[in-house]
Amino acid sequence: MSETKALATYLVNSRLEDIPQDVRHEARRALLNYIGCAVGGSREPAVETALRSLAPFFGKPTAGLIARTERMDPLYASIINGISSHVFEYDDTMPKNYIHPTPPVATAAFTYATANRVSGRDFVHAFLLGFETEARVGNAVYPAHYEAGWHITSTAGVFGAAAAIGKLLGLSTQQMIWALGIAATQASGLRENFGYMAKYFHAGHAAKNGYTSAILAKSDFTAGPHSIEGPRGFAAVTAAKYDLSKITNGLGTEFQIRDNAYKPYPCGLVVHPTIDGCIELHQEHHPAPADIKSVRVRVAPLVLDLCNKKDITRGLEGKYSIYHSTALGLVRGKAGLQEYTDAAVNDPAVKQVRERVVAISDTSITEDQSHIEVELVDGRKLVKFVEESIGNLRRPLTDKQLEDKLRDQASFVLPAGQIEKLIELCWKIDALEDVGVLVKATVPA
Amino acid sequence: MSETKALATYLVNSRLEDIPQDVRHEARRALLNYIGCAVGGSREPAVETALRSLAPFFGKPTAGLIARTERMDPLYASIINGISSHVFEYDDTMPKNYIHPTPPVATAAFTYATANRVSGRDFVHAFLLGFETEARVGNAVYPAHYEAGWHITSTAGVFGAAAAIGKLLGLSTQQMIWALGIAATQASGLRENFGYMAKYFHAGHAAKNGYTSAILAKSDFTAGPHSIEGPRGFAAVTAAKYDLSKITNGLGTEFQIRDNAYKPYPCGLVVHPTIDGCIELHQEHHPAPADIKSVRVRVAPLVLDLCNKKDITRGLEGKYSIYHSTALGLVRGKAGLQEYTDAAVNDPAVKQVRERVVAISDTSITEDQSHIEVELVDGRKLVKFVEESIGNLRRPLTDKQLEDKLRDQASFVLPAGQIEKLIELCWKIDALEDVGVLVKATVPA
Repeated sequence: MSETKALATYLVNSRLEDIPQDVRHEARRALLNYIGCAVGGSREPAVETALRSLAPFFGKPTAGLIARTERMDPLYASIINGISSHVFEYDDTMPKNYIHPTPPVATAAFTYATANRVSGRDFVHAFLLGFETEARVGNAVYPAHYEAGWHITSTAGVFGAAAAIGKLLGLSTQQMIWALGIAATQASGLRENFGYMAKYFHAGHAAKNGYTSAILAKSDFTAGPHSIEGPRGFAAVTAAKYDLSKITNGLGTEFQIRDNAYKPYPCGLVVHPTIDGCIELHQEHHPAPADIKSVRVRVAPLVLDLCNKKDITRGLEGKYSIYHSTALGLVRGKAGLQEYTDAAVNDPAVKQVRERVVAISDTSITEDQSHIEVELVDGRKLVKFVEESIGNLRRPLTDKQLEDKLRDQASFVLPAGQIEKLIELCWKIDALEDVGVLVKATVPA
Repeated sequence: MSETKALATYLVNSRLEDIPQDVRHEARRALLNYIGCAVGGSREPAVETALRSLAPFFGKPTAGLIARTERMDPLYASIINGISSHVFEYDDTMPKNYIHPTPPVATAAFTYATANRVSGRDFVHAFLLGFETEARVGNAVYPAHYEAGWHITSTAGVFGAAAAIGKLLGLSTQQMIWALGIAATQASGLRENFGYMAKYFHAGHAAKNGYTSAILAKSDFTAGPHSIEGPRGFAAVTAAKYDLSKITNGLGTEFQIRDNAYKPYPCGLVVHPTIDGCIELHQEHHPAPADIKSVRVRVAPLVLDLCNKKDITRGLEGKYSIYHSTALGLVRGKAGLQEYTDAAVNDPAVKQVRERVVAISDTSITEDQSHIEVELVDGRKLVKFVEESIGNLRRPLTDKQLEDKLRDQASFVLPAGQIEKLIELCWKIDALEDVGVLVKATVPA
């Protein structure tokens, strides 16, 4: 059986009961993290600009947005929610293929759930199938596809969104094959747009086009039967090398969401181990900023290539400064979104410590490690070696850390009480009779 | 200056006065041919299915369709008109890059013109700039891009639609660069879908996404500055070999629309020379079907590879039958859409002659040639050698032949009087104060 057909057959026949509980818990974690990102990002310029420019084209207001009061049709809502969820660059990542997997799939599914009554069980099931589809399509073409310049979140994401909405619409196997084919023919997104609003648009674009694929297929709009594996299909056309067995091997038993990772800090990944160590030193010793005489961090050479900004005044610059992140960990004991604002960069206590940090490039240190040495004015030395940074697959963020991350992001938009209620709803999403209730809970009163 | 910027600068600064009259006449020809295709195709199942499935998502009915009474927002109208214009596979072709150039660009522009008042002058200018953009982007990546499996009408088309709508919206150079970047990141369409509705969707998809790109850019939604030429831009990502000089060389002086060609018959290109010769024999000798004893056609080997269907009962099979097309030319003296219906295939006079046709594969005959020998019952022999088929660049369809092609297609939908009025409007499109009038003239009363 061809890969496209095998995948479609699995999607149509899958039952939630056949998916292990740990996988279903990973879905809750991914969705909670998604909600935090989408709430937090919902006021960013890319979101406001897309809303303003596309509003004249919106359809009937049957769907709602995450964290915003505007209403519109679910396809444009998918574009907007997709941008919100991706714009902080704080979304989940699969180390295996560099996909940010949840934004395209959850965007389509949550938007669908605001326009149609969907139970939590059906929602989580559709989300998991969309995630699995996207991850497997991505695995099949990674790394050649990504290295060529495709933004794989976008190109694989459209398959995931089509699969999730296709499941919610109850497509037949033939229709699911068509949905995957219409998705394949819309797969796009260039890395050349990294650093620009168009990059964030990709997540919404994938969500919307995947959703549209399922809608068209439901009405028997036809596509080719070999859209993934055919000689002019997605894999052959977009990847110099690919492995189609990754689409089907272990399908239904090996779940890709088990390999999903979460960024604990909204800044360059390479400074994460240093932040980890500094936060630990803060928690263990609570050194007052004035008591810190000097700090030496030994890090992998790539850290200084990417994050060597020292004299900084703006929050965005802080994201690319090993000095700022080091100071944050020591002074504040955390490095959330509020630590990368203009105010935080200009905070006198942080600035004072930042100026005392020396960073040393050391080829014996891996990119996942950091060696930190703090000299206090009383002569004591605090030393910390981080072997592996938090958030990678061997040190996954705990549920509590994911909650804190959501709190951090949502605090830009929602009052504390509403945030706690929202966290509660995320953890019990499978038990909801109507997932629309959860989306409503993201909107400021 | 980078290619993306040079192209954007040209688009923004171009004035209609700088475009030669012969080029402007080619625009009229392309638009007339487009209107015929879109009117004729407007009742096809792919159009009806897309309309039915997407209707719940349509925005405010500010835009109209070609040849249909439904109203909707211009972006969904672009999808529908795009499908209509491409679904007969009778649209124009650039032999240089195999793009069907007019559907993506004209679809976006005509749809825009139903929602906004646009003068014929501005319309033709925007169309020509969109055409030029699409053709040059296509030239830069052809043939590697097409051979890889991209449906180049779709992938290059989105740039053309963005350029045309960007010109109509009066984008600045920076905004035009963003529009091209947002278009680039949506460029998609796989040849694996050839033979299915998704193939026809590509033209609408390109039109709609290009239109959307210009709308977003107008509100300062940003994209990368090097979306075409960058290391992770459109050319490098989608073509193993490309030549960026084709984007800019001769820009503003060498117009690609001069290399546009029109299919005279709605069937496989390789049988066209045989049809030409048979129509000439019909016109010169008017042989009665009963007087035709036998027909021998000597053709290039590819003809028998592709079009060797002999015992046929359905119109679609007729398109792939050298026997049927030969009989049509001799018996009816034409080979329009009405000649490839089920009725035409089962017409006793056509069938009688078809059964007397022998086709001989001859390697000395090129794919653009045909040698026809008709033996009549009275012993006479009629012989015709076609050196070059009608419709190729050295034997372009005359304006009159394009009109007849429109008449043929539009006759499925419109009464004869309305068709003549429509042809008149197409020829004087640059003089119209409001191009919306032309689109209204395509709708059955």
